[in-house]
Amino acid sequence: MSDVFLNGSLTIAGLGPGDTAMMTPEVNAAIAQASDVVGYNSYVARIPPREGLRLHASDNRVELDRARHALQLASDGGHVVVVSSGDPGVFAMASAVFEALESAPEYLDVEISVLPGITAMLAAAARAGAPLGHDFCAINLSDNLKPWELIERRLQLAIEGDFAVALYNPRSASRPQQFARALEILRAGCGPDRLITFARAVTTPDERIVTVPLSEAKADMADMRTVVIVGNSATRRVGRYVYTPRSAP
Amino acid sequence: MSDVFLNGSLTIAGLGPGDTAMMTPEVNAAIAQASDVVGYNSYVARIPPREGLRLHASDNRVELDRARHALQLASDGGHVVVVSSGDPGVFAMASAVFEALESAPEYLDVEISVLPGITAMLAAAARAGAPLGHDFCAINLSDNLKPWELIERRLQLAIEGDFAVALYNPRSASRPQQFARALEILRAGCGPDRLITFARAVTTPDERIVTVPLSEAKADMADMRTVVIVGNSATRRVGRYVYTPRSAP
Repeated sequence: MSDVFLNGSLTIAGLGPGDTAMMTPEVNAAIAQASDVVGYNSYVARIPPREGLRLHASDNRVELDRARHALQLASDGGHVVVVSSGDPGVFAMASAVFEALESAPEYLDVEISVLPGITAMLAAAARAGAPLGHDFCAINLSDNLKPWELIERRLQLAIEGDFAVALYNPRSASRPQQFARALEILRAGCGPDRLITFARAVTTPDERIVTVPLSEAKADMADMRTVVIVGNSATRRVGRYVYTPRSAP
Repeated sequence: MSDVFLNGSLTIAGLGPGDTAMMTPEVNAAIAQASDVVGYNSYVARIPPREGLRLHASDNRVELDRARHALQLASDGGHVVVVSSGDPGVFAMASAVFEALESAPEYLDVEISVLPGITAMLAAAARAGAPLGHDFCAINLSDNLKPWELIERRLQLAIEGDFAVALYNPRSASRPQQFARALEILRAGCGPDRLITFARAVTTPDERIVTVPLSEAKADMADMRTVVIVGNSATRRVGRYVYTPRSAP
């Protein structure tokens, strides 16, 4: 069979939060069969090298370039796995690949599949107890791709609806003030006693999970490796756990 | 060592949506080491029987009794795994166990851990493409544990915030009219062209994934094995996929 007839494939796979015990067998199998792994440096670093596997690591904030590169490799016949931390469909590479595909229809024949992973908020919730046990929202606090005003508005609406809320990318060195502003909004809308959980580097050796009332929450309790979970009005502690009851308050 | 010194444990584990290729290694390991598996009939039926493993299957809607039973078994020294479909922290058994623990503090010494799983909305989103690629909400449409008015209100607020929305338990035989009402609210708030994905029995042999504009959505396209994903105002198709861009519209 000549190379001309080789069909490549593109798999967008979620590695989970860090611990390989949370990687699904189908993601492991996809990586075992890959010719190429494409992703952000620190995620590609999680992939054990082996003969015949090309690793393509790139910097943050070049998601569309990375996606186009992966489409090209698959179009050339490669079995390409794009790796994301957590779940690839939650603030990660799956949407970036489809955006790239939309702007480059010559790749529409590439066979694309998405393999879910354990996303950070669910790993964090499990470690803390069950703070997302009732209706909840997931909001990306980064304003790289949307105006900050929209983030504030969504946060307000989530509070108004008494949703529990998971906040991704709460704080980075380039925008330290925004998470402080988010905490102000939360305190104004939810009061000082509402429980907030900071889950940093979940399932890694650096893991740290802290739950405090909003009155004790400080902006520097979060960084880019943290996912933040704000309870709803019924969220409470039992023993060392924090949970949100299944019933509405 | 006498039985008096045996310490039991309670693990609340997510089996994922159905396919064992989406079960995490840590969940498999917990089941392999269990003395007792406790859960809803159809989830316990997924666990291969083996010598020394006691299976405790129960009906739907007895979550608190099931949780208390699991706490008692663990308190008696059992290594008990409570199984949920999907993720145990998302509209599943984790909150029920903590509710039971709150009302029975004699079990506070039981060592409890929660192991996350691939929740239905993320498996469904992966199959469809990336419809949850931007801020989103997860709402349980069942009014068993909250008033229907609150569900309508949350749906309205989610639309107002232009969140993508995942709807769990959209429709059952006992409340066929409510999902029809939810579709009315969605059509009024989002217009006829908004994309909605019905994902039934994801990753099982009965899997069926259908995406239509709201104008073509009918209530009987959903049942209790369906998770429904409503896009935000930017959600669109590319090739056979449906995705929500990372940027705000």
